[in-house]
Amino acid sequence: MKQYLHVDEWSIIEEGFDAHTHELSESIFSIGNGYMGQRANFEEAYSGASLQGSYMAGVYYPDKTRVGWWKNGYPEYFAKVLNSTNWIGIGVEIDGEPLDLYKVKVHDFVRTLHMKEGYLSRRFTATLEGGKEVQIDAIRFVSAKRQEIGAIRYSITPLNFTGKVKLTPYLDGDVANKDSNYDEKFWLEVSKGSDEAKAHLTVKTKKLDFHVTSVMTYAVTKGGQSVSVTPEQEEREKFVAHSFTVDAAQGEELVLYKYVANVTSRNYGLGQLLPTAEKLAGDAKIAGFAALLQEQTDAWAHSWEESDIIIEGDPSAQQAIRFNIFQLNQTYSGEDDRLNIGPKGFTGEKYGGSTYWDTEAYCVPFYLSTHDPAISRNLLIYRYKHLEKAKENARKLGFKKGALYPMVTMNGEECHNEWEITFEEIHRNGAIAHAIYNYVNYTGDKAYLGQYGLEVLAEISRFWEERVHFTANKGQYVMLGVTGPNEYENNVNNNWYTNRIAVWTMEYTLEALAYLKEQEPSRYTELVDRIQLTEEETAKWQDIIARMYYPSDEERGIFLQQDGFLDKELIPVKELGAENLPINQKWSWDRILRSCYIKQADVLQGLYFLGDRYDLETKKRNFDFYEPLTVHESSLSPCVHAIIACELGYQEKAYEMYLRTARLDLDNYNNDTEDGCHITSMAGTWMAVVHGFGGLRVKDDRLVLNPFVPGHWTSFSFKVVFRGALLKVNVTSDTIEISNQTGVPAALLVGGQEHTLEANGTWKQERVTA
Amino acid sequence: MKQYLHVDEWSIIEEGFDAHTHELSESIFSIGNGYMGQRANFEEAYSGASLQGSYMAGVYYPDKTRVGWWKNGYPEYFAKVLNSTNWIGIGVEIDGEPLDLYKVKVHDFVRTLHMKEGYLSRRFTATLEGGKEVQIDAIRFVSAKRQEIGAIRYSITPLNFTGKVKLTPYLDGDVANKDSNYDEKFWLEVSKGSDEAKAHLTVKTKKLDFHVTSVMTYAVTKGGQSVSVTPEQEEREKFVAHSFTVDAAQGEELVLYKYVANVTSRNYGLGQLLPTAEKLAGDAKIAGFAALLQEQTDAWAHSWEESDIIIEGDPSAQQAIRFNIFQLNQTYSGEDDRLNIGPKGFTGEKYGGSTYWDTEAYCVPFYLSTHDPAISRNLLIYRYKHLEKAKENARKLGFKKGALYPMVTMNGEECHNEWEITFEEIHRNGAIAHAIYNYVNYTGDKAYLGQYGLEVLAEISRFWEERVHFTANKGQYVMLGVTGPNEYENNVNNNWYTNRIAVWTMEYTLEALAYLKEQEPSRYTELVDRIQLTEEETAKWQDIIARMYYPSDEERGIFLQQDGFLDKELIPVKELGAENLPINQKWSWDRILRSCYIKQADVLQGLYFLGDRYDLETKKRNFDFYEPLTVHESSLSPCVHAIIACELGYQEKAYEMYLRTARLDLDNYNNDTEDGCHITSMAGTWMAVVHGFGGLRVKDDRLVLNPFVPGHWTSFSFKVVFRGALLKVNVTSDTIEISNQTGVPAALLVGGQEHTLEANGTWKQERVTA
Repeated sequence: MKQYLHVDEWSIIEEGFDAHTHELSESIFSIGNGYMGQRANFEEAYSGASLQGSYMAGVYYPDKTRVGWWKNGYPEYFAKVLNSTNWIGIGVEIDGEPLDLYKVKVHDFVRTLHMKEGYLSRRFTATLEGGKEVQIDAIRFVSAKRQEIGAIRYSITPLNFTGKVKLTPYLDGDVANKDSNYDEKFWLEVSKGSDEAKAHLTVKTKKLDFHVTSVMTYAVTKGGQSVSVTPEQEEREKFVAHSFTVDAAQGEELVLYKYVANVTSRNYGLGQLLPTAEKLAGDAKIAGFAALLQEQTDAWAHSWEESDIIIEGDPSAQQAIRFNIFQLNQTYSGEDDRLNIGPKGFTGEKYGGSTYWDTEAYCVPFYLSTHDPAISRNLLIYRYKHLEKAKENARKLGFKKGALYPMVTMNGEECHNEWEITFEEIHRNGAIAHAIYNYVNYTGDKAYLGQYGLEVLAEISRFWEERVHFTANKGQYVMLGVTGPNEYENNVNNNWYTNRIAVWTMEYTLEALAYLKEQEPSRYTELVDRIQLTEEETAKWQDIIARMYYPSDEERGIFLQQDGFLDKELIPVKELGAENLPINQKWSWDRILRSCYIKQADVLQGLYFLGDRYDLETKKRNFDFYEPLTVHESSLSPCVHAIIACELGYQEKAYEMYLRTARLDLDNYNNDTEDGCHITSMAGTWMAVVHGFGGLRVKDDRLVLNPFVPGHWTSFSFKVVFRGALLKVNVTSDTIEISNQTGVPAALLVGGQEHTLEANGTWKQERVTA
Repeated sequence: MKQYLHVDEWSIIEEGFDAHTHELSESIFSIGNGYMGQRANFEEAYSGASLQGSYMAGVYYPDKTRVGWWKNGYPEYFAKVLNSTNWIGIGVEIDGEPLDLYKVKVHDFVRTLHMKEGYLSRRFTATLEGGKEVQIDAIRFVSAKRQEIGAIRYSITPLNFTGKVKLTPYLDGDVANKDSNYDEKFWLEVSKGSDEAKAHLTVKTKKLDFHVTSVMTYAVTKGGQSVSVTPEQEEREKFVAHSFTVDAAQGEELVLYKYVANVTSRNYGLGQLLPTAEKLAGDAKIAGFAALLQEQTDAWAHSWEESDIIIEGDPSAQQAIRFNIFQLNQTYSGEDDRLNIGPKGFTGEKYGGSTYWDTEAYCVPFYLSTHDPAISRNLLIYRYKHLEKAKENARKLGFKKGALYPMVTMNGEECHNEWEITFEEIHRNGAIAHAIYNYVNYTGDKAYLGQYGLEVLAEISRFWEERVHFTANKGQYVMLGVTGPNEYENNVNNNWYTNRIAVWTMEYTLEALAYLKEQEPSRYTELVDRIQLTEEETAKWQDIIARMYYPSDEERGIFLQQDGFLDKELIPVKELGAENLPINQKWSWDRILRSCYIKQADVLQGLYFLGDRYDLETKKRNFDFYEPLTVHESSLSPCVHAIIACELGYQEKAYEMYLRTARLDLDNYNNDTEDGCHITSMAGTWMAVVHGFGGLRVKDDRLVLNPFVPGHWTSFSFKVVFRGALLKVNVTSDTIEISNQTGVPAALLVGGQEHTLEANGTWKQERVTA
């Protein structure tokens, strides 16, 4: 893949149009506001390869599942992020000739994602078949302030002729999911209609009855002056359009402003959909494009204020980290606790479902440090609300008690169906427990335990209790038949990470119970009664904690990924010829499974999560053993390695790991970004910088920092939200400077030195370690 | 499931029509002749639930595969046994009212499968809506002598009226596979047509271009006298029919004889299809129904002569064993070495593909003992012909050399796609090697080794050589990531059976090489040159033989099914509540996998295959450990257990095991016979009787017998083909009598006593053991 995007600190810029990279750009230049999102499709018709994609958060479809051989316990459906009404469409005809970039000659094409301000622009000159030249300038955004509103400014200037321009803004609900299992379309028309000033379309999903109403309003100007048009109204199944023709003089700019409100039955009663959307679209038109864009710029300025990272001396890295932060903030705003962070966000459809353990393991740390704690709390409450479904899921798999959260979900029900994942990759339960610890530890919000956290912890502990068993053969508890985070081993016995996170869950649950009993005795009693927690159970947890089996190799001083690991042929990745990589494309599955090659951090994931329980020597021995066997073929792998490498002082290795995901989508490393961007791994990249190079942790109610500047950079700085304070951390090779940008003091531990940073104060420290 | 079939020693009889059991009966009453087969569908229209099924051996379809998530190395298609032209159809209208057993009142319904003579009959009285009563007698068979011919005698007698009977014999190629992955139809019309005396239809498959031409001729009689009819010819897409109306007097029998020839492009050039089928169908009509039926009776008499088993004192067991033998002989005649034995034969569609390791492990022993050795040899040559494909398959999975036979195949290519089976259940290679040993040992045809056998053995040994690796951790060779015969464990390390059969393959290959080198040196040299077998390779095999790791438990004195087996919770099946059984319906897959429960013989399969290498004590310890943990949820499980139980003197257990498959389909134990009968497991039932109760083995060129009569029987006798002799073995509780029904002497070892049974001689022995 050639790098075809320009490096710029605040923008993503594509110059020159190439149909071959169009689908890739459609992913990369996507826009979103947490409520809805839109791939960077063209407004006008395009007959080349394209994934037209408009997505409304939380609107999904339970597609018929597709498996080769059914296993008991498989879910009945596979939930899909649902491609919904195309609201951006504007048909363009110049003197009867349609504008289609796949067919006309295109010059001076520039597509820009303005990350600072939060909008997408596109400019080009097209030479039509008869030689007529037009210049197009298009700007589009989905409003960060008015979540239902998308706005487009579409400008046409005849360069060498005077003629007639026919414009057809439309709403098209006849869309299909690219990843539909049986080529089925999922939408039915409910109603449509229009008057002279606006049009509306309501569609609903064939199942689950999600309704989406779109209303478009628009305005036209010519040479900056408002033009009144009388539209021809066109309707067909799931489609409504307005057409009008305007005389355009050479050199005169003709502009169509299109404002669309998309509202859904997730937020409004059916009777309210149309009036609400009409009001919103009408208000947007009244406000006007310039005002909406100003709101957008202001909202993004505020967002960057909290979460920007500045890297000096490496513009490419600067662009990449901002792109990652931008996409994360586009994907999840945290206002709606029914939503979560899909692996592709609003940039594509692949993988289905919205929620993986990625959220807890990678995204929660990002939101904890860059947003109000309420945002992370909502991510936790999302799982709390799914607790009953997780209990049902455990029952379905034959467990008498406890909760097993799904591997992939939309509404709390499992919708993944590979047995080795669905049934066996149960460590996901541990990540969900650990996120509760992480939230409480970071924010200090211990009240969360009594409110929601402990109930989830207890049900997960109950699951682990039933999932392990005592074997006379070893005289210990074991856990058979699991898949660890390294999905390149399946159905193994005693995955160290899973055993460890299971026991840790019980330890933390007991600790939290003890805390609650002492601090909030009445709530403790209420909880214990409600979930009927017995002393027998907690005693059993104690016994499991005491007698769990952990595979290890004493000679090497390492934990073993699973019982049989040392029987594998242990040949470092670097000795594999390039012809073997990536192994997931070059090798058959059985060969991968019996090999020693690791897809993503597994033992090391445990050493990261439970980092304060292991000494550096232990981490070093395990890192030195496992990292050389790791192929990092999950985008979630390098960040954890980068963070541990930083702890171990392996600065070059850390930087190498950081580079593997920083520009994953911008440089299309995995050759699959046309399917959508790797949203959750972007949080991993942020972690590599802040937890890795910044060395950020929270311990004993203090913010811990142990930063260093990677050799390739001059300096870097990042913002951190911590216990009500917004801190800016600036790291150079010589100094660490922390400024408190709020009126709340912050307790710090920097380079081993304790300090309380007063409100609005600054603390500068000479670097302790190189 | 109620037992709705009558017990009869030579027939399967259903009395009274019940639409609920119709699909089940359609399977059970199926007819076939090795070349084609037909479910027991009705000739006339039937609007109730039915699986209309006509199958031509070797005509298959590569259906688009269906998997949830693709893995590298998966096959591109899933081969289906192809439902083809419905040739039995006869529309019947009585005074304008269609005869449809789902709609009319049916009395005195009797459906009979005449196993002795090889035909299906059906008789019933129907009361039509207006009160008219007709009696129908239908007889049908596919000819054992003229393989392309199917013949039907369809008789109608008005009982209480005189009226008009309209008959419409037809050929309908517009059929679908019930198990089509995407509801696709697989046939296209090539041509059709008719004249006054016959009609023809040629269809071809959408892929692979299999052509099937069907020609029907027919004759009509009334009151025994020939009637001339002038048919109306009806045609539509993939359909051709003749209709005519006959006046039928009360009490007068009207008979339609329908003769159909089905020929395929597997045996004839496209230009020859129609003339050949016309000739064959014409000849059948000239011969007439009575003569064809006599041929059929004669052919089946000959077949029973070779393979009958007589059980005295237990008519139900007698019926069952004959049903099993009958279905096996219907399914595979052994004349065409491109064919094999599908798990459902011609009785249904489920499972797709035609060839599993069932053939080598269960069917070869049956055919060896009941048919000319050429039949078994053809089954072996079938695999020899697929050797290049098996080598390609190994390459596809990344092996530099050797051959991996597919788990399921039609043409040598793999068409199964569950990774844990396709890629990992590689012990199938061992069964294919072992069948070569079995054939040579049984028949004494050592020339087969040099001709075909050794090349297959060497390529399989090469596969094993590359599949194992030496691990410093154990100082031995190991084999990781396999699925053994017990498919209730997946992706395990060091499955004892697989390790053992792999090493055994190398041992036998080396032994066969040594034999060839000494006995046929020039052929040896030619072979070694052609397959470029090196001394380095054979030395490596020796090293693997010497240093293979076999998991075992010294304390219990048993082999371990796999490395982690003893960490499982070991609770005998009998302590599981009935609510848990069968576990494959009651438990989620992960629970099954981590449980100790065994689907079918695994360690014990090895002790059966390599029975002469292990002493009784070893077999006993392993049987006593594993059998109580075995749920026998594969129809192939009980027979192996029955045989070993017989060896160990566990007569009751052996009989219990025998019962679990003897009437599997007749009593619909597994509640799935409507999908088709369990053809390959029928060979297992035969094995339970002959290898189990009969104690048959072949050792040092002698036929070994160690029989006993199960307590529930008075006596039993079976026929055995051995080295040119046809022996009848009769076993009572007191005596064993063996009569040689041919002019060839036979070397015997009965109850430990050596004896050469002269031509046409009889040897009677008092029973040695109780």
